[in-house]
Amino acid sequence: MPDTHIPLTGYLFARLHQLGIRSVHGVPGDYNLVALDYVTPAGLRWVGNANELNAGYAADGYARIAGLSALFTTGGVGELSTLNAVAGAYSERAPVVHVVGTPPTSFQDRGLNLHHSLGDGNLRVYASIYEKVTCAQANLRDATTAPQMIDDTLRQCLLHSRPVYIELPADMVTAPVPASLLDTPINTARPPNDPDLESTLIHSLLDELYSARQPLLIIDGMAARYHIEDEVNTLVHQTGFLTTTTAFGKGIVQESHPTFYGVYTGAAGNPDFMHWVQSCDLVLRIGSLKADSNSYGFTALTDSRVTIELDQDLFDFRGTKHNMSDIKSFLQSLLREFEPTNLQASNRGLEFIPPSPTDLALSLPAEGPITHDRFWTYISRFFGEGDTIMTETGTSYVGSCDFILPANTTVVNSGIWLSIGYMLSACSGAALAQKEMVASGLRGPGRTILFEGDGSFQVTAQAVSDIIRNRIDVTIFLLNNDGYTIERYIHGMQAEYNDVQPWRYLDSPWYFGAPRDDPDYPVFTKRVTTWSELADVLDHEQLRAGKGFNMVEIVMPKEDAHPRLKEQMRIASRQNNAQEEERL
Amino acid sequence: MPDTHIPLTGYLFARLHQLGIRSVHGVPGDYNLVALDYVTPAGLRWVGNANELNAGYAADGYARIAGLSALFTTGGVGELSTLNAVAGAYSERAPVVHVVGTPPTSFQDRGLNLHHSLGDGNLRVYASIYEKVTCAQANLRDATTAPQMIDDTLRQCLLHSRPVYIELPADMVTAPVPASLLDTPINTARPPNDPDLESTLIHSLLDELYSARQPLLIIDGMAARYHIEDEVNTLVHQTGFLTTTTAFGKGIVQESHPTFYGVYTGAAGNPDFMHWVQSCDLVLRIGSLKADSNSYGFTALTDSRVTIELDQDLFDFRGTKHNMSDIKSFLQSLLREFEPTNLQASNRGLEFIPPSPTDLALSLPAEGPITHDRFWTYISRFFGEGDTIMTETGTSYVGSCDFILPANTTVVNSGIWLSIGYMLSACSGAALAQKEMVASGLRGPGRTILFEGDGSFQVTAQAVSDIIRNRIDVTIFLLNNDGYTIERYIHGMQAEYNDVQPWRYLDSPWYFGAPRDDPDYPVFTKRVTTWSELADVLDHEQLRAGKGFNMVEIVMPKEDAHPRLKEQMRIASRQNNAQEEERL
Repeated sequence: MPDTHIPLTGYLFARLHQLGIRSVHGVPGDYNLVALDYVTPAGLRWVGNANELNAGYAADGYARIAGLSALFTTGGVGELSTLNAVAGAYSERAPVVHVVGTPPTSFQDRGLNLHHSLGDGNLRVYASIYEKVTCAQANLRDATTAPQMIDDTLRQCLLHSRPVYIELPADMVTAPVPASLLDTPINTARPPNDPDLESTLIHSLLDELYSARQPLLIIDGMAARYHIEDEVNTLVHQTGFLTTTTAFGKGIVQESHPTFYGVYTGAAGNPDFMHWVQSCDLVLRIGSLKADSNSYGFTALTDSRVTIELDQDLFDFRGTKHNMSDIKSFLQSLLREFEPTNLQASNRGLEFIPPSPTDLALSLPAEGPITHDRFWTYISRFFGEGDTIMTETGTSYVGSCDFILPANTTVVNSGIWLSIGYMLSACSGAALAQKEMVASGLRGPGRTILFEGDGSFQVTAQAVSDIIRNRIDVTIFLLNNDGYTIERYIHGMQAEYNDVQPWRYLDSPWYFGAPRDDPDYPVFTKRVTTWSELADVLDHEQLRAGKGFNMVEIVMPKEDAHPRLKEQMRIASRQNNAQEEERL
Repeated sequence: MPDTHIPLTGYLFARLHQLGIRSVHGVPGDYNLVALDYVTPAGLRWVGNANELNAGYAADGYARIAGLSALFTTGGVGELSTLNAVAGAYSERAPVVHVVGTPPTSFQDRGLNLHHSLGDGNLRVYASIYEKVTCAQANLRDATTAPQMIDDTLRQCLLHSRPVYIELPADMVTAPVPASLLDTPINTARPPNDPDLESTLIHSLLDELYSARQPLLIIDGMAARYHIEDEVNTLVHQTGFLTTTTAFGKGIVQESHPTFYGVYTGAAGNPDFMHWVQSCDLVLRIGSLKADSNSYGFTALTDSRVTIELDQDLFDFRGTKHNMSDIKSFLQSLLREFEPTNLQASNRGLEFIPPSPTDLALSLPAEGPITHDRFWTYISRFFGEGDTIMTETGTSYVGSCDFILPANTTVVNSGIWLSIGYMLSACSGAALAQKEMVASGLRGPGRTILFEGDGSFQVTAQAVSDIIRNRIDVTIFLLNNDGYTIERYIHGMQAEYNDVQPWRYLDSPWYFGAPRDDPDYPVFTKRVTTWSELADVLDHEQLRAGKGFNMVEIVMPKEDAHPRLKEQMRIASRQNNAQEEERL
């Protein structure tokens, strides 16, 4: 290879490094092995996950913290095992670069009957599957076009904040490409909004904000994907409008805002508040994810006639849609022109609603079982500035709406995909990203704290191995309530199919090979069953430090659930029944 | 519901029961919960796997023993996690009925933004993915057509011995269908061969068999899928032809046949034998899987000019293809007309090849590390009649060619899909099927014995939980050689990416919740590092009994590998390089 050239794989990994990636998730396989030689020389860490699904989930978690991640699997068996994770990243907009090592191009062209294939000579059937769950694809068959394809694909990944799919045939791994191409950074700037349209919409929106009598802000989770947390918080502060988030948007709004009213849970929450919301004359919703799961069976959505929605690509003004491309610059321009003295709104009629969840911790019983009604508020005392708090789908997701969050905390949850097991692996990726970003000064210190149910834990348990292997600092609260609780409330309260096998969860670090007595990677485990035991463990110095591997098993009564979960399940059940009656 | 009718789900499960299924693999989820109420009343066991990939693999293993299996997941997240397993079942022809609980039909029709979706209103994108890896699909939207659709789909599953995909919308679970439909069994008979064509081909084949001077039989693994083991063994016995199997076909031919020459490994084996094979004037190959992985980089395939291939749907006589539909009845007719005295063949020129692997055990050293060169022959002394022996992809698959098998043993391995982690979960399904078939008198007693590498074990470790939860009897030989050995031989002998996290494997039963001191489900674990320790453990009464959960961790040197594996990797590497040179 001439001095002026580098191997294609080196180019790919250098681009990932330029975009801020420091670790590559994945599992080795015969079609990606040679390419793995280029990971470390590019300044990247090879995570080496125990399986591909976990690698995919971890890459998703990493992307939500670092803004981009890489996943590298082998073709066929490897990539199919991670499909669920990539589909989830697509639905919730986590920018994951999925690189797949594929068979040599001439083997593909000749349609050979290769292992990891369906035996029909079609070696790219997997690519046709991945088209459905990625926003851009590239097949690097030609060294002359491959660098530009890589650059374009990575750009699409960032622009759409969605996974992309790159096929790297085994014979292309070392194909020479000009090194000088790396000198020109990938253009990651968003295309600008149409200036006239932007100007028109800014003034239209300002008029709306000024004239609203009973306005509401709903900050949804995609706001984090659009990286507009600062703009959103400025808007909340400057307008003084009553502000809620969705469950998916939890954590985006600083909860110290006096007008922060927590998560709006529609029909699953306070009916008086729902009535108040329904009588608003303006709802400004930002970064929407309008799935049933994030809107309490659509009951927390608001009438399009009073709603203005701002998303990355589309603004919707009371039903009139406008194609946009850059919400961040729009909000920045809006805020520059915004004049608070023009506001007419008052947050009237809200005297009956407490602005944040009641801190039931004040009246906690010393003994008795730990129950959902108070747990989620109570545990908030454990949180500190800079923490990343991750809540698994199911009871943890539901409970997390009660968190009282310090400033600059990050919440990671799932708003639509809801694949149990996701969060444990995502936690390994998120905590790794956090560690790297703290090390490079991109983020202040903070712990990674996970709330995970027992049934979910079992799905991806070997993520604990990945955590330990990479010496990642995590704190896991494992809620052991003996099965799939959310399923019990949907159907089958006593049914055996909602039970899970009782594991010895606290043995996890030892089973998965944690070091014993390593001061650089301490291990802490504890099982608690009462409020007083919980209070004690939360004061434990090692747990508070959050260094190493920490796991608290919280035993909860089997049939206990958050009151809001029960209400949510009643809504879902009513909707299903209505639908069934309609059919009959 | 009128007395004459039953719920659609009851109908579906009754059909599965009629076809011999006794257990349903899967994981509960919101879209399949109500349907799960009908599992037990249909006389079926709900396995309740820890995750969907394992459920899929287990269903595949169950199908390979019982001839059909059922897998039940929830839509979206559940089904995508099991895709790799279903694709593997497709490529290796395991008949798995995959039932997916989907959202209510009117939600689908209205394109609601539901959880477990990509958020675009298309709730059947997963069905379009599954079309690629299943041989028939049914969407049960209409109670008047659903029973026939179920019957047709199950018939296709059996005819093609490949997975099928059935969507069961949540609102259709209890839809009434006439109970009397169950009185007519599903027609599982194969369509007959064209009688004239069959007759012609029989006489043509008889002429070939009679006139061949140096014939060879190659029995490949699909013969087991076509349920023609008896016919094949009769053919081997009556012709007296020299007989080999492929690695995938290991176990189909009774090894007591005096002309059984083991697995033909092409260029990876004895060059004299390969030369002999290449000079044959007739090769009869039955039940082919001609993937690179099952033919040592295609070197064990034979010239089409001397080869006759018989498969379920297609016969290939020296390059001339004939569509057929029933290989079993063909072979039975052939054998009825076959007259051994007409044969002219002699197995000449084979004096130099031992007819079975040398039993190196006779000269075993008492001490020293356990190495691949002798292990696979040596371990054969542990096998008994009726055992099912499962070998994971990688070193176990390669080594298994050396097994010396007693009569009536079943070997399960992977010939093309080669997805590591498959075999541990498949073992849970296969052992469950074996247990049920022994209980119902369909099979004689025997153990289920698994050979699994450490890297593979980590992929699907929670299958141990499924095994214990269902009190399935297994014997696991875990080969701990500290990483992905087969990958080391492909590329990266010392590379960190081929290491795995060191787990405490023998803690598995305790971690995953095995009962202590339960005489009905005993637990046995032992670690061995030398030949003498291995010899001792193989004599242990509890291990020999194979009841309960048994696990022997066999520590092997990190870089040791079977000589044939090294040769196989050299072949693959040569082929890759040739291909790369071709490109340059």
